[in-house]
Formats: sequence, C-alpha cells, structure tokens
Amino acid sequence: MQYIKKIREKTPLIHFITNYVTVNDVANAALAIGASPIMTDEINDAVDMQNICDALVINIGTLNERTVKTMIAAGKKANELGHVVVLDPCGVGATPYRNDVINKLLEEVKFDCIKGNISEIKAMANVASKTNGVDACEADKTTRENMHDVFKFAKELYKKTGAVIAITGPIDVIADDKYAYISDNGCKEMRNITGTGCMTAGIIAASLVANKENKLEASTAGVIILGLAGELANKYAKGTGTLHIGLIDELSNMNDDILEKGAKIERFEI
Amino acid sequence: MQYIKKIREKTPLIHFITNYVTVNDVANAALAIGASPIMTDEINDAVDMQNICDALVINIGTLNERTVKTMIAAGKKANELGHVVVLDPCGVGATPYRNDVINKLLEEVKFDCIKGNISEIKAMANVASKTNGVDACEADKTTRENMHDVFKFAKELYKKTGAVIAITGPIDVIADDKYAYISDNGCKEMRNITGTGCMTAGIIAASLVANKENKLEASTAGVIILGLAGELANKYAKGTGTLHIGLIDELSNMNDDILEKGAKIERFEI
Amino acid sequence: MQYIKKIREKTPLIHFITNYVTVNDVANAALAIGASPIMTDEINDAVDMQNICDALVINIGTLNERTVKTMIAAGKKANELGHVVVLDPCGVGATPYRNDVINKLLEEVKFDCIKGNISEIKAMANVASKTNGVDACEADKTTRENMHDVFKFAKELYKKTGAVIAITGPIDVIADDKYAYISDNGCKEMRNITGTGCMTAGIIAASLVANKENKLEASTAGVIILGLAGELANKYAKGTGTLHIGLIDELSNMNDDILEKGAKIERFEI
Repeated sequence: MQYIKKIREKTPLIHFITNYVTVNDVANAALAIGASPIMTDEINDAVDMQNICDALVINIGTLNERTVKTMIAAGKKANELGHVVVLDPCGVGATPYRNDVINKLLEEVKFDCIKGNISEIKAMANVASKTNGVDACEADKTTRENMHDVFKFAKELYKKTGAVIAITGPIDVIADDKYAYISDNGCKEMRNITGTGCMTAGIIAASLVANKENKLEASTAGVIILGLAGELANKYAKGTGTLHIGLIDELSNMNDDILEKGAKIERFEI
Repeated sequence: MQYIKKIREKTPLIHFITNYVTVNDVANAALAIGASPIMTDEINDAVDMQNICDALVINIGTLNERTVKTMIAAGKKANELGHVVVLDPCGVGATPYRNDVINKLLEEVKFDCIKGNISEIKAMANVASKTNGVDACEADKTTRENMHDVFKFAKELYKKTGAVIAITGPIDVIADDKYAYISDNGCKEMRNITGTGCMTAGIIAASLVANKENKLEASTAGVIILGLAGELANKYAKGTGTLHIGLIDELSNMNDDILEKGAKIERFEI
Repeated sequence: MQYIKKIREKTPLIHFITNYVTVNDVANAALAIGASPIMTDEINDAVDMQNICDALVINIGTLNERTVKTMIAAGKKANELGHVVVLDPCGVGATPYRNDVINKLLEEVKFDCIKGNISEIKAMANVASKTNGVDACEADKTTRENMHDVFKFAKELYKKTGAVIAITGPIDVIADDKYAYISDNGCKEMRNITGTGCMTAGIIAASLVANKENKLEASTAGVIILGLAGELANKYAKGTGTLHIGLIDELSNMNDDILEKGAKIERFEI
C-alpha cells in the first residue's frame, strides 16, 4: 500500500465548495495529508478554478442559492475535465430544500464517491428513488448483524450513481457493485467534534487523485486514514479540544506503515 | 443542580445563524456540552430546519442583507413552534446598519435570552429606547459598586423584551424582573480569544432547552459553564492558543459536580 | 524596537474583509498580538465600520461579487479617513476573475502594504503591468542568489502602487523603493498549516497602525513576528495541529525582547 506516499508525491490540488463551519479543518486536514486545498464558491471564479485543480469536493452543509449554482457549474466543469468529484450530502433529509439540491446535483454532476453517515445516504437514496427506484434501507446504523443489508443498499446506489458509496459510522462501509469494505477504525469520541465527515471527504478526494487505478480502495483508504488519525489522537487527548488538534497532528504524521498497521478492515464480495 | 446532565440526556438540536468567524468553535462547544449544532442561513432551508430543531441562536456578527432576512424568518418560525430563541447582538452600536437590524429583530422575534457585553446591551437598549423608552445605563463595566444600576437596567430591558438579559464581563450579570445573578467565573485571558461570547449563547440555548422550568437559572448556568471552562483551562494554558483548546476540553469534561463546585455566583432580589 | 509594546498599548481596531477559511485564526492572531479584530463584508455595514476602526485588511481568498463591492467601497472609505489599508491578493493568478478583482482594487484603493507569496505578487504585477508596465520577475522563490532580482521587482511594484511589498517564502522580502529587508524567520512546516499568510497581513496592519513613522520597518516587523512565532512553536509541536495552536500561543506571549533576539533579518539598500 502506498496511498499516502502517492498523495504526498502528487500533492493534489483540491477545490472545495464546502460549509463555513468546518472549512478551516478541511483545509488543514488536506494539507496535513499532503494535498493542497483551495476554496471558492463564486461562480465566476470556481468554474475556471477547475482548470488548475485535480479534484472538486462539494459539501452542502451551509449551502445557499448562490453557492448551489456554483456547485452545479463547477461540478459540470470538473466532469468535463475528467477530475475527481466527491459529494458530501451533509444534512440531506433535514429539509425539502436540501433534498431538492441533492436531486439536482445527482442529475447534473457525476460523482466518483459519495460519502455520508447512514441517515444522509438513506435520505439521498430516498431523493434518488423518486426517479430511480432505489430500495429503502432499514438500518439506522451499520452493525455486524445488518451489514449485508447495508452492502446491498450501497451496491444499488453505486449502480444508480456510478459513485463509490462511503457510509461512515461506528462501522464504516465503503462499496461499489462488487465489493464492500468495512472498517472499525475511529472512536466514538470523534462524534463530538465537528468536521470529521467533511475532512474525510477531502482526504478521499486526495486519495482518489493519487490512486486512480482503484476507486474503491482509494476511497476506503481515505475513510480509514481519518478514522485512524482520530483513534491515535484519542489515546492521549484530554477532551474534544485536544482530540481535534491531535487528529490533525496524526494526519500530518501519517504514512503508509502506520496506515497498514492500524487499518482494521475486512473485504466482502457483494 | 442537573443542568449539564439534562443537556447531555436531551441533546438539544440547535440551529445557529451565526458569524463565520467563530462558527467552528460554536459548533464544537455545543457538541462538547452535549448539544447537537446545525448551521444554515439560506432562507429556503433555515425556516424548515426549525421543524426538526429545539432552539435557534441568532448572532449578527457577520450579518448581511440576505442572512438578516433569514434571521427574521427563522426567528418567527421558531416563535411559532415555541422553540427557545437566543439573541447575540454582536457588534450592535458599531454601525447604523447593525442598529437597524437589531431593531427589526426585536420587533419581529421574541427572544428567551439576549446575551452581550455591556456595550452591546447598552447599544441595544438605545436602539430599543427610541420606541420603548429604556433608560440609559452609565456603567462601562459591571463592578461591585455599580452592579445595582446594572441590575435595574437589565430588569427594565427584561420588561421590554421578555428576554432574560445576560451581560457578560469581568462580572457577569444575568437578570429577569425579579432576580439578578452575578458570576465571577471566567478569567481576563479569555478576552484575548475570539468566540467566547458566541459559544456562551449556544450553551445558554442548550441549557434553556434542557431546563425549561426556569429560564433565569438555565441562562445563568450557560454563562457560568463557559466561564468556568475557561477558568479551568487557564490553569494550564501556555497562551491563548492552548487556552482556546483547553476551554473546549473542559467543556467536554464538564459535569454538574464540577459546575457546582466551581460556580462563583450570588443572587440578588431586584 | 518597541513594535509589539506599541501594538499592545494602542490596541488597533482592525476591520477584516477576509476569507472564511482562515478567519478564526486571523481574529485570534490579531487578538494575540494585542489588536482588536472586527469582521464584516456587508456593504451597508462595512463602510460605516471604518469610522470606528484604525485599519482595513482586504483578503480575496473566498471573494464573491457581493463582497468585492464591499472591498472597494470600504477601501475607498478607509483611504478617505487616512486609515492603514493592507492587501492580501490571495490566489491571484489562479483565475481571470481574481485578476480582474485585483486590477479593480489596485485602481480604486491605495494600499500601505501588499503581502503575498512570490507567485501571487508576480501574478499581481502581471495584472498591473497591463496598464503600468511592471517588468516580469523570473524567480519562483527567493534565494540568496536571485534576491537582488526580487528586490528590483519589489521596488518597481512599490513605485507603481505606493505600497510596501511583502513577499513571503522561505526567505521573506519586504521592500519599498530604497531598502529591502530579508528575513529567514519561519520554518518549512508552516507551509502545511493554512492561514499563516492571512494572519501575517493582519499583524502587518496592527504594526502599521502602531508604528506609523516607518511603514517599511513596521511591515517587516509584522512579517517577522508571525515567522518567529511559528519557528518557536515548531520547537515543541508534534504535528501541524499543535504547530497551529503553538503559533497562537507564541503570538500571545510575544514581546519586543523575544522579537529582537529571534529576528533574523538583513537590510539592503536597493
């Protein structure tokens, strides 16, 4: 495995249209793992920005009408240029507006990976199911017992969207139409810091740029890297403030040896 | 006292329309004390978001014409639904525009608590006094000598607005029309980190949701929790960076025992 | 040297129109060095805000059409009032839109200092050269070998803009039309945290307000203060997370003795 080595060698330039809550962490996490972040949500700037970038990450956390237009326009441009595009459907399901936006994004932009927690991914599937007929998923969180249902659900979504589906939670699931990885990395304390999901999307994008040959494994690496960094930081954190900072420290010190030793993954044929 | 236990049990979902300077800290502070934050300022999203939330916090720090409309619309919706609404009139008094916005907010939205430093609360009273006749307050900061003037001023504002008035400073004052609490918690070093006021507003909102029976005491608890967390962090902080992070650590470790032992409060009949 | 003493005595009130990625660090860095930050980008608020401020910092990192109008209007007002104005042409050169914005800003607003990395300053010169005929600069980064070319380039830009030119990098160059300072402060690890440039612009503004008699030396002090703080923090940082926090700690503990002992500067007549 040379996921991180390749990221650090390639230093992917990643354009983020992302929420203003966690944007600083997203930038610092991207830098820590060896990528180079740039943020812009002005349509006159963002479309052209794709010309010098390797990837686009769209996160709808603090969307507004202006920035949604930018997301769509920049997403189309990224698709034209063959760039990696990652979607974080942050908070989808919470309001009709978010659902509409996700619907439009899925219609207009092709994604390489879609990452969310299970309720976001299920809400996204519901939105998509209006036109696409995706089956509902009963699981509220992924467990050893229900994971095969989650795999089936993710596989179906992959078929509809063409995007690797990364479902984060106590057990993470990352799947395409052939295989699903599960990961036990991370720790429950990470739920109490904001931005872990947003950072994960950025690291997935970096990993996808640097490891183009296998989208599923590159996306899986992105999810594990963040989870492992938090897990390592949690060993010495004194609360959620130092966990937050330690997580960035661990990302900046991360390498493929640490990743290989720390990764808790299993692969399933699905 | 079970303020924090109740917050952690209830995990109030708090919608923030807040400034982009301190929004990450506001989210992490809310998570650290056991609440769940969601940020959106798009009018098509924010009004509906109230349907799934328990509270709304409005902070005008980096207001703009678009987000002010959202503040008013979401505020009205929160009032309709009987949700807790907290106002942080950040920077009011600095410009005529901020004064106009606060005037509109006070006209259109009913608040459970209004929290600011003394110059903000005085500026807000001046704005309100144009129509409401609130007396001026001479104090530039609350001291043991002038505190009864501050109590009287806060009491009058409570009567005009129906909101508990929380005036933060070296001595914090939290008052309704019957009682005023003062708190000596906090430390002067906290003035040199941004966001302590914004975080306080969020913690007040969480405390109000979880402790509905007594707004004055719930608001007071919110003010003390933040002050005490900073005070505890200041014992080992090496500068304002580690004070900032330590404050979040202390919030995440806070419980009612720590609060009860650390609270430096007095109550006055006013 | 009493740069920092003067900042802490004067506590300059600095208005930032800055990107939402690093705005929290910018505010905390300004507070840590003894200034007082206020952020607003609403045109109805920002122009009036200059009435109570000492300085304006414009950073185009996450510009949009609305905020660009505010930048120009607030910049003109700051010029009228004789306030310190600093430009951080963040990301100029990346897109035609950013170049247009910088062109407009240079036409409409007079700056006391313009701070960027060498590619930004070169891109800005290219933009300006369309109308002003600034020569190109060959250097990709400042070295001991090419620094006299960089000095000449900065001198020319100073003549065209009237602004002290601060070019940050492994070797920082700060120049007007008579002298150039170079600084070896800072460390390579700082490149892996976002916001060091944005924070530098704010500290330059604070230094310029407090040390009006010599713009070149005040700007130089601003650059060194940030570099030295990072350098000191890097001695004990365990990764980029603790470097980021340590940098703020060091800023909050900085004084003129530490600055004088730690400054690695040389002055050249140019």
